[in-house]
Amino acid sequence: MVSNSIRNQEEIAKFAIGVDLGGTKIGAALVNNHGDIKEYIKNPTNAQQGKDVVINRIKGTINQLINQSGVNVDHISGIGIGVPGQLDARTGTVYSAPNLPGWKEVPICRIIKESFQMPVTLENDANAAAWGEKIFGVGQGIRDMVCLTLGTGIGGGLIFNGKIYHGNKFAAGEVGHIIVNKDGPHCNCGGVGCLETYSSATGIRDRIYDRIKKLNKNNSESDIDNMSLSDIFKRARQGDPMVKDIVEDAIEYLGVGITILVNLLNPEMVVLVGGIANEGDKLLLPVKKYVFSRAMKIVLEDLQIVLGKLKGQAGVLGAAALLWHSDK
Amino acid sequence: MVSNSIRNQEEIAKFAIGVDLGGTKIGAALVNNHGDIKEYIKNPTNAQQGKDVVINRIKGTINQLINQSGVNVDHISGIGIGVPGQLDARTGTVYSAPNLPGWKEVPICRIIKESFQMPVTLENDANAAAWGEKIFGVGQGIRDMVCLTLGTGIGGGLIFNGKIYHGNKFAAGEVGHIIVNKDGPHCNCGGVGCLETYSSATGIRDRIYDRIKKLNKNNSESDIDNMSLSDIFKRARQGDPMVKDIVEDAIEYLGVGITILVNLLNPEMVVLVGGIANEGDKLLLPVKKYVFSRAMKIVLEDLQIVLGKLKGQAGVLGAAALLWHSDK
Repeated sequence: MVSNSIRNQEEIAKFAIGVDLGGTKIGAALVNNHGDIKEYIKNPTNAQQGKDVVINRIKGTINQLINQSGVNVDHISGIGIGVPGQLDARTGTVYSAPNLPGWKEVPICRIIKESFQMPVTLENDANAAAWGEKIFGVGQGIRDMVCLTLGTGIGGGLIFNGKIYHGNKFAAGEVGHIIVNKDGPHCNCGGVGCLETYSSATGIRDRIYDRIKKLNKNNSESDIDNMSLSDIFKRARQGDPMVKDIVEDAIEYLGVGITILVNLLNPEMVVLVGGIANEGDKLLLPVKKYVFSRAMKIVLEDLQIVLGKLKGQAGVLGAAALLWHSDK
Repeated sequence: MVSNSIRNQEEIAKFAIGVDLGGTKIGAALVNNHGDIKEYIKNPTNAQQGKDVVINRIKGTINQLINQSGVNVDHISGIGIGVPGQLDARTGTVYSAPNLPGWKEVPICRIIKESFQMPVTLENDANAAAWGEKIFGVGQGIRDMVCLTLGTGIGGGLIFNGKIYHGNKFAAGEVGHIIVNKDGPHCNCGGVGCLETYSSATGIRDRIYDRIKKLNKNNSESDIDNMSLSDIFKRARQGDPMVKDIVEDAIEYLGVGITILVNLLNPEMVVLVGGIANEGDKLLLPVKKYVFSRAMKIVLEDLQIVLGKLKGQAGVLGAAALLWHSDK
């Protein structure tokens, strides 16, 4: 039997706040339990100003969000925060975050909870995005899912048996550090030939710069600095020899990485999100072709490889959804 | 409150039967709940005689085991069966098994249950071996574990959050089909450059035969047919140019595969079992060296890479342990 007070609380607290803390921007959304965003704001992180300033800016952003929305705080069940770093979701502590100077062992959940007097939960940003797609996006009803965040770097989130899988040190899901060529380029992680060195925005640009250097060309000739990733993909399709096979490699190695993932994990769905995923079918179709020609038959049965549908808002939606649907 | 009858049943039913159905041999053990083998027998499978004969031989083997042990059937809580094939552990059906001709959609659990009137549970053989190491072997108390079965082929089992992870079509854990070289040899799975093509016994032999062919040598000159895998590893260590770099490749690619696994899944333990693992430290040390030089720092924290300790009995022990510790 559900008591009246609990029932009332459930009915009232139909909103949650999702915070997506990035190296350059803090996104925050007030979300209802159907995944509708009632209010959304974005502020600069100014990460170089240090941890304390950033924490204050997070608090300010949450306050601003609540005030702008006009929603009574009693109707908000809590705050979920996605952070791009190494963390312990159980204790709510961020251990380190490469793009957030000074973030070492920060008990962010406790700090935010003290200010807002409501439950606060923490998750890695890539896991939060995966969770967003699982709860409110393309992954609804999917039990086993792999989500790849294709951006500056490549991150990922693993959903097994309907839950986020964290691994021993909360470090699972590093799909960007699948080795796709043991003799490939050095990777920032200390390894060699990781997927990220071929198929991330940084990897693609670095390989183009390398080629320019080898050809003894001047950077300005190639105009790469001023080109968006979308421009680079476009030039490759137009046959520009400077970028064509680098973009083809990016797509092929992404196919290799996903083939490894599906052979190993037999998920029902692979979801691609992030900047590069904005290429849409131009990325998706050749990647699918590769995977469906290389992976084991049994793991291809009923396999879906799709683009996420929450776009830039997967992070805040997933962070908010942690309040209702996650158990660690 | 636990009723007396349940308590009595728990005390009485302290044995389980584990069956390890292989392409050449059927192993069966009567195991107590501490993992001690009370009775063990092994019979030839004679797989080519077809499904029905093999099923009868399984039943005969179980009967023989019970009779030899002298244990009252009331003290046996059930039968666990490990099968080398594609199956649905929930329904207890084997869909296909490459080394067992005629095994198509066989409801093996129902068939065995009808004969023995006790619970019967089914698992993929590599998962059963992983489960054996988890419950009675090196993996006791470990929550997230990857087990690689290094034999004729390469299989694997994934234990996440203390449970066997099956994936969407019960096909998860195919660590042998991690791509380690996208331009490598063709694999029986239909893919290219899978770990199995480099680091399984078959992969190593096939690559040696290929080399012999290319050198236009006669097979008999090389004497490979008569060499055990252990002999091949020994020759490599002695510097035999015919096999040295092929064995070195086998070890390096195994390192690549395990690096992929730990970067992606952040397990607490990686366990190596099966024939090649019998090489012991001669295999383990160079593989560990590779992984610890290439994987991400965070996933190497507290990571153990070890040899299994149940040797050839991981399969029967794991199959028996399904009765007590698994929930699907």
